[in-house]
Amino acid sequence: MNNDFSNDEKNGLYKAIFSRRDVRSHFTSDPIDDEVLSRILNAAHHAPSVGFSQPWNFILIKDFEIRKKIKDSFEIERKRSSHLVEEPQKSKYLSFKLEGILDSPLNICVTYDPLKFGPFVIGKSSIPETGIYSVCCAVQNLWLAARTEGIGLGWVSILSNDTLKKTLELPEHVLPVAYLCLGHVSEFAKKPDLETARWLPRLELKDVVYYEKWDRKENSSWNNIHELIKANLDYA
Amino acid sequence: MNNDFSNDEKNGLYKAIFSRRDVRSHFTSDPIDDEVLSRILNAAHHAPSVGFSQPWNFILIKDFEIRKKIKDSFEIERKRSSHLVEEPQKSKYLSFKLEGILDSPLNICVTYDPLKFGPFVIGKSSIPETGIYSVCCAVQNLWLAARTEGIGLGWVSILSNDTLKKTLELPEHVLPVAYLCLGHVSEFAKKPDLETARWLPRLELKDVVYYEKWDRKENSSWNNIHELIKANLDYA
Repeated sequence: MNNDFSNDEKNGLYKAIFSRRDVRSHFTSDPIDDEVLSRILNAAHHAPSVGFSQPWNFILIKDFEIRKKIKDSFEIERKRSSHLVEEPQKSKYLSFKLEGILDSPLNICVTYDPLKFGPFVIGKSSIPETGIYSVCCAVQNLWLAARTEGIGLGWVSILSNDTLKKTLELPEHVLPVAYLCLGHVSEFAKKPDLETARWLPRLELKDVVYYEKWDRKENSSWNNIHELIKANLDYA
Repeated sequence: MNNDFSNDEKNGLYKAIFSRRDVRSHFTSDPIDDEVLSRILNAAHHAPSVGFSQPWNFILIKDFEIRKKIKDSFEIERKRSSHLVEEPQKSKYLSFKLEGILDSPLNICVTYDPLKFGPFVIGKSSIPETGIYSVCCAVQNLWLAARTEGIGLGWVSILSNDTLKKTLELPEHVLPVAYLCLGHVSEFAKKPDLETARWLPRLELKDVVYYEKWDRKENSSWNNIHELIKANLDYA
């Protein structure tokens, strides 16, 4: 089959991937257009899912009282986790802006329901975690779609799942997978905040690719691709 | 900020999302171009990751003996799981083509290394599973990039993780998250195979969206978006 994507379409996907950021600052108060939001949610709903089980739900949250409870949970968890790291890293960690729960106009909690279309889901018996993996793919679709619509998104993971479940009244069997903050932004950062702050460097592509088995970095059958990967093409 | 995506670029992302398929058939023997493969891997490597930990590795596999062992594991697991479902669903399940391990020119195992940049990873203390979630986002990037390059991809989850770990010589602490089969294809199906086979229907978007809390399907603050979502715009 000939490739059915034009160069502009292909570039659109790569541009979304390389310019997507985990946004915690720069949110503006502009509301998100309802048509834009429905497109973003529809993109998330068209993620792959194990056995076509579509095990995700999207809880849209604007209510201040709810968001305040989540924000309180963030503060508690951030303080708790700061005791796990020594100075001077601890102060640096505490100086980072790591959430936009109240600054953004919209929060979305993405959940996993293991009972949907169950108990027998094709492809889920040997590795049951694949149900959660499907939900993560939906989050990434949502994130990329938001980026092409000019909407910033931040994933807040410094939270208590127990608080999320209680506050959002999730049934016992449902797992909160992602808590997202969305909104228009004054700018998208050129690089991830933690890279700019020199907290961690971006790994080179050659450092995360192996050939045939774990930790095999050289293999005569793979010389050509290895040279390309070492060149570390920077599309970002 | 004005939106920095052209209509063609935006459409490219949505086209990738809606035309992406879990491919198990229609692989051709054409090899994947090395530059295309390096672009796809680079897209995966630019996924979001908790605390910028980049906890993924990509093991590229062509070796026949390795793939044969994985294929054997698939056969064992498929047989085992078939006992979980009653007739007539059992025969239908066993009639599905669910992997392209030996038919595709390239397999990729995507793994999760919880020790990378550890032990303290920002954002991972309260919900340690977020490390695995990052790897799933990388898989979705990889999948979408492959689609825009005209490359089909199938995720095989009817496998034993123990066999994968042993065969690929993964360290004890490393988890195989996804086993992927990639290659050029004679066609991309219009709909998911399991939808076409009437195994399961696609849910409507309105059935997976809640407002403010779990299971709240109506809310006066959300009337406008609710009407749009009920219209169930079909971009696919």
